[in-house]
Amino acid sequence: MYDTLLQLPLFQGLCKDDFTTIIEKVKFHFQDFKQGESIVKQGTSCNQLIFLLNGKITLKVVDSLNGYTFHEIIPAPHVIEPYSLFGMSTSYTGTYLAETDVKVLTIDKSFLYDELNHYEIFRLNYLNILSNRIQIAHQKLWSTHLQTLEEKFYRFLSDRSLRPQAEITLQITMEDLARLIHETRINVSRMLNNLQAQGLIQLKRKEMYIPALDKLAKSLI
Amino acid sequence: MYDTLLQLPLFQGLCKDDFTTIIEKVKFHFQDFKQGESIVKQGTSCNQLIFLLNGKITLKVVDSLNGYTFHEIIPAPHVIEPYSLFGMSTSYTGTYLAETDVKVLTIDKSFLYDELNHYEIFRLNYLNILSNRIQIAHQKLWSTHLQTLEEKFYRFLSDRSLRPQAEITLQITMEDLARLIHETRINVSRMLNNLQAQGLIQLKRKEMYIPALDKLAKSLI
Repeated sequence: MYDTLLQLPLFQGLCKDDFTTIIEKVKFHFQDFKQGESIVKQGTSCNQLIFLLNGKITLKVVDSLNGYTFHEIIPAPHVIEPYSLFGMSTSYTGTYLAETDVKVLTIDKSFLYDELNHYEIFRLNYLNILSNRIQIAHQKLWSTHLQTLEEKFYRFLSDRSLRPQAEITLQITMEDLARLIHETRINVSRMLNNLQAQGLIQLKRKEMYIPALDKLAKSLI
Repeated sequence: MYDTLLQLPLFQGLCKDDFTTIIEKVKFHFQDFKQGESIVKQGTSCNQLIFLLNGKITLKVVDSLNGYTFHEIIPAPHVIEPYSLFGMSTSYTGTYLAETDVKVLTIDKSFLYDELNHYEIFRLNYLNILSNRIQIAHQKLWSTHLQTLEEKFYRFLSDRSLRPQAEITLQITMEDLARLIHETRINVSRMLNNLQAQGLIQLKRKEMYIPALDKLAKSLI
């Protein structure tokens, strides 16, 4: 268990001695979730750090205004929205569901202030994770100009995904997707069928499945 | 001077006693720049926090690949790219020039580790600033779908700007802008002239000036 915990993004680099001291002081709350169970709901208040220790979870974001639902499967180890614990908007931006049976570790915000923050490596890991996220978002925002139809579709997914190699299910009608990326339905349909023929996506009724976003990215070069 | 420093985003909330202790230990490097002088160059390594104490600076980003240069004027108090001190990409994403005569305060990264990080308020301010930035970027990235021509122009600026009320100069040809927002040159020209007639932008040769981005945003609703 020690080894698993020391692999978590926020604990990487801590020595075992420090970690033993932390475990004595900080309340580690372990929890099991069965496949399909909800771990966190979109819009609820973020007062803790939740670490995925094993298995996979699904991030689900419903954009009812624009008529789509975005799912991304995230493997362990992962920490859920460490950037929603601070700042102006301290609500979860998505719902997180157990994609497989999973084990999670929850640490309350108060322990983070009182104990974890005394460890320089923990603090540095936190700053590195947040800064990385900003740097990636910055790169994406500075390349929001438009190119080919395939690139627009890729960008729509990439702008919303956490990982370059994201496994994504997008529930949307072709009409809605066409509207959101500002193309005709017939062009979008042709593009999607072409990507399906290349094995890069799978089309179902009102749904598209992208097994690996980085493969889609590579096909665009 | 104390009062000015305590208004800086990273020092807000520190009490004067703490601040006196900090000043004794941390090397505060004050510097004056004349109007037009360069404070930091795009692509150089970020090893320090630079605070703008008074006056205005200009963020200048050259995107030579896409044929445009983006300028945003930023008033004091401001801290330059605190998110470039950590993470994977520790280079400045833009050039910062003195727009007026300015005074800046520079603190080396080593003092941040060794001294400033011992103050909980400083640490919290840092986490809040970074988290806010992620939350704003997240909102922008989740609304990259397209709507009207005016909205696409606004989004192009907003995705690249630091503040909602940004004062921006964009050096670009109408052809390049039309290509980047995927519209015809004639439509872009008509839209820009219409915005100029409303007093929201000013057009010059290969250049457009947006005095207040939030006013442009309001006109779209």
